[in-house]
Amino acid sequence: MEPKKPDLARLRQDALSVFHSALAAVDPEEAIRRHLRLEAGALSVGGQRYELNACERILVVGAGKAVAPMAKALEDLLGDRITAGMLVVKDGHGLPLKKIRIQEAGHPVPDERGVAGTLEILKLLEGAGKRDLVICLISGGGSALLIAPSEGIRLEDKQTATKNLLACGATIHEINTIRKHLSRAKGGQLARAAHPAAVLSLILSDVVGDDLDVIGSGPTVPDRSVFQDAIEILQRYEIWDRTPGPVRDRLSQGAGGILSETPKPGDPAFQCGAQVLVGSCLRALDAAAQTAARLGYPPLILSSKIEGEAREVAKSFAAIGKEILSSHHPLKPPACLLMGGETTVTLQGEGRGGRNQEFVLSGAIALDGTERIVFLAGGTDGTDGPTDAAGALADGRTIARAKALGMNPFAFLKRSDSYHFFQPLDDLIVTGPTRTNVMDVYMILVGA
Amino acid sequence: MEPKKPDLARLRQDALSVFHSALAAVDPEEAIRRHLRLEAGALSVGGQRYELNACERILVVGAGKAVAPMAKALEDLLGDRITAGMLVVKDGHGLPLKKIRIQEAGHPVPDERGVAGTLEILKLLEGAGKRDLVICLISGGGSALLIAPSEGIRLEDKQTATKNLLACGATIHEINTIRKHLSRAKGGQLARAAHPAAVLSLILSDVVGDDLDVIGSGPTVPDRSVFQDAIEILQRYEIWDRTPGPVRDRLSQGAGGILSETPKPGDPAFQCGAQVLVGSCLRALDAAAQTAARLGYPPLILSSKIEGEAREVAKSFAAIGKEILSSHHPLKPPACLLMGGETTVTLQGEGRGGRNQEFVLSGAIALDGTERIVFLAGGTDGTDGPTDAAGALADGRTIARAKALGMNPFAFLKRSDSYHFFQPLDDLIVTGPTRTNVMDVYMILVGA
Repeated sequence: MEPKKPDLARLRQDALSVFHSALAAVDPEEAIRRHLRLEAGALSVGGQRYELNACERILVVGAGKAVAPMAKALEDLLGDRITAGMLVVKDGHGLPLKKIRIQEAGHPVPDERGVAGTLEILKLLEGAGKRDLVICLISGGGSALLIAPSEGIRLEDKQTATKNLLACGATIHEINTIRKHLSRAKGGQLARAAHPAAVLSLILSDVVGDDLDVIGSGPTVPDRSVFQDAIEILQRYEIWDRTPGPVRDRLSQGAGGILSETPKPGDPAFQCGAQVLVGSCLRALDAAAQTAARLGYPPLILSSKIEGEAREVAKSFAAIGKEILSSHHPLKPPACLLMGGETTVTLQGEGRGGRNQEFVLSGAIALDGTERIVFLAGGTDGTDGPTDAAGALADGRTIARAKALGMNPFAFLKRSDSYHFFQPLDDLIVTGPTRTNVMDVYMILVGA
Repeated sequence: MEPKKPDLARLRQDALSVFHSALAAVDPEEAIRRHLRLEAGALSVGGQRYELNACERILVVGAGKAVAPMAKALEDLLGDRITAGMLVVKDGHGLPLKKIRIQEAGHPVPDERGVAGTLEILKLLEGAGKRDLVICLISGGGSALLIAPSEGIRLEDKQTATKNLLACGATIHEINTIRKHLSRAKGGQLARAAHPAAVLSLILSDVVGDDLDVIGSGPTVPDRSVFQDAIEILQRYEIWDRTPGPVRDRLSQGAGGILSETPKPGDPAFQCGAQVLVGSCLRALDAAAQTAARLGYPPLILSSKIEGEAREVAKSFAAIGKEILSSHHPLKPPACLLMGGETTVTLQGEGRGGRNQEFVLSGAIALDGTERIVFLAGGTDGTDGPTDAAGALADGRTIARAKALGMNPFAFLKRSDSYHFFQPLDDLIVTGPTRTNVMDVYMILVGA
């Protein structure tokens, strides 16, 4: 008698449930609700306690794709205690709010509407006093939306400098060093504008490692870089000569000590500051792990900091899944392996796909013929590359099903055409936009 | 007061101890000693029991880089009970033995000495009877060393066919399908030659997944592929026309039913057969885990089946190490993460290095600035690429030390020059040849 085949349909359904629970945990409204408590007139958050009756004004500012729903949760909680507010969000990402104004603007390419909104934020903060509380909401996209070039710098100068750096493969830290020294808001300057008010930053992280200095280019945290660093980066990549004249002038003047530096650690601007990470990839993985455990799959979170080429990372992850089946390392079935982060795809063809779909295609090839394993990858923002899918899922029969439809999986992988591979198999995960972004979730679910 | 720095020197020393314990566990002599027991005239191995007094003759055959020391351990155990034997090993890998003859031959490019040795093995097995025990030793390199082209095929015809397939990126299974159908020994044919004797195969695995059909091209296990498969593979890669005439003739005749097939599952040749994996990557990782635990680092084996581009796999592995430090997932410090397998390097420059050294260089960049982490990768054969090192180790200060010497780590990685990066840092691991090969060991050691 053939041994009973494990119920793959059930396994796939459970994998999707685990993924959706990860999304729910990092919904921006939910993230604010979960972290903030209002009791006896005091706002408690991340170990901080603010006596609201002692506050003269509460000002809400911020920028990012997800800050409108974050602000909505704040209004639900604080109501009329909020005095005023100003946010910059991506086009189509606004919401009707009561006290807080919203400026929609261009993203990922910043535009003058973003500049106008950012200048309004700075103006609002100008009058902030010692007894005011400034709540700053920051999420992914903040760098492009919180945009106010320094005096003498045009938006296009800044963009040219950033584009040149991206083309050289500069790190996000290097790019931000330039950005911060060409901006009125980035690199702690929003906190300086709010001084001497207390500044509470509520942050939804979309970057690997949750570095507060990187998310939205760190508008409320100290900057350790100086003008001279910015010059050296541009020289090291040999693009100084291609850098717009006004940018070179400003950096040179700054390095010469004529212009004031971004605020450094120890600056009074940060004395009454607090940073609370209300949502992150690890938070999503934690929620996924809880759901997996509830469904009967003991979970193991491997990392929330995954980076690297999607198809290669997928091979390593699949190898761990196979080891679970063959030797019960690192844990025995049933099991749920979880990782998160953001991979990259070096495009190898004219195909259509995204990093998560490509991740799953590579994993499906590695897991071809296995039983009891489901392999899933999805973007928490609900979008994977230029497609309408968030990601995909696969199992040990996916490759055979594809071949039966006349598809060569290697050929699809070779031309980065993962969307057209999974579409006819009905293995795409389509959630629509989720309003949040804490990068991607990768999952291997192993049946009993 | 500065917090006390963890003792990195101690951590590095412990990482090397763990690595060396992995090597010791898969030493070929040790692997045989550990798995075979002689008690009251019976040989016990892997759940099998052979009454030696009932055996008329004991014949020892085999091929591979590591089979000479395996045979030495057998002679130490069985002494004069061994009747005769014949092995084919790589040049320089022989040992003086008492009853068993050794033929050294070319590897990785096979030569006529290999053919001569293999034909002697087949001749020795020809006379094997029902009451004989044939012990077949197989290790990495066996495919090139156990080499006896079928009638009418010249060694160079076979090599041309294999080379063409390698150039197309064919899988090892596809290449072996061709090899087996052009051979007198591969694909179960050694077992058929030994029939009706009992055949005990003792195997040291050098392939990901320990597939017995792949190690040494499976001379004593059933072959599921047929002549027609071989033809289809050559046609699929569009190299049929470039395949030597005698090879095409043989495959066509075989597909036409004129030639006898390799033995299939159920063939009488396998009735008295047993396969025992005496050494494998997982065995090395198990030993490493035991040593790590003894030294105070609770271990976690992630997988022994790792494949993929070295620099990308290293990033994923490093991401797991960083998560241990930041959130205590998948386990809390102190800890030892272990993986094994064999990565690949897509050469990007004229540099010198190996897949393990490149792995560590990529990991060192990812872990730059961390404390309490040591990152190690080493080949269990003691050789990494065309260098005298087995691998390398690094920690969070490696990149800073390199920069202090004026080295740009990214540039070294870019041109695949990992050897020259680690040499001046004194971070190479040099063991000399170890006589064994169970692929590579990857380790992250995290201090308390």
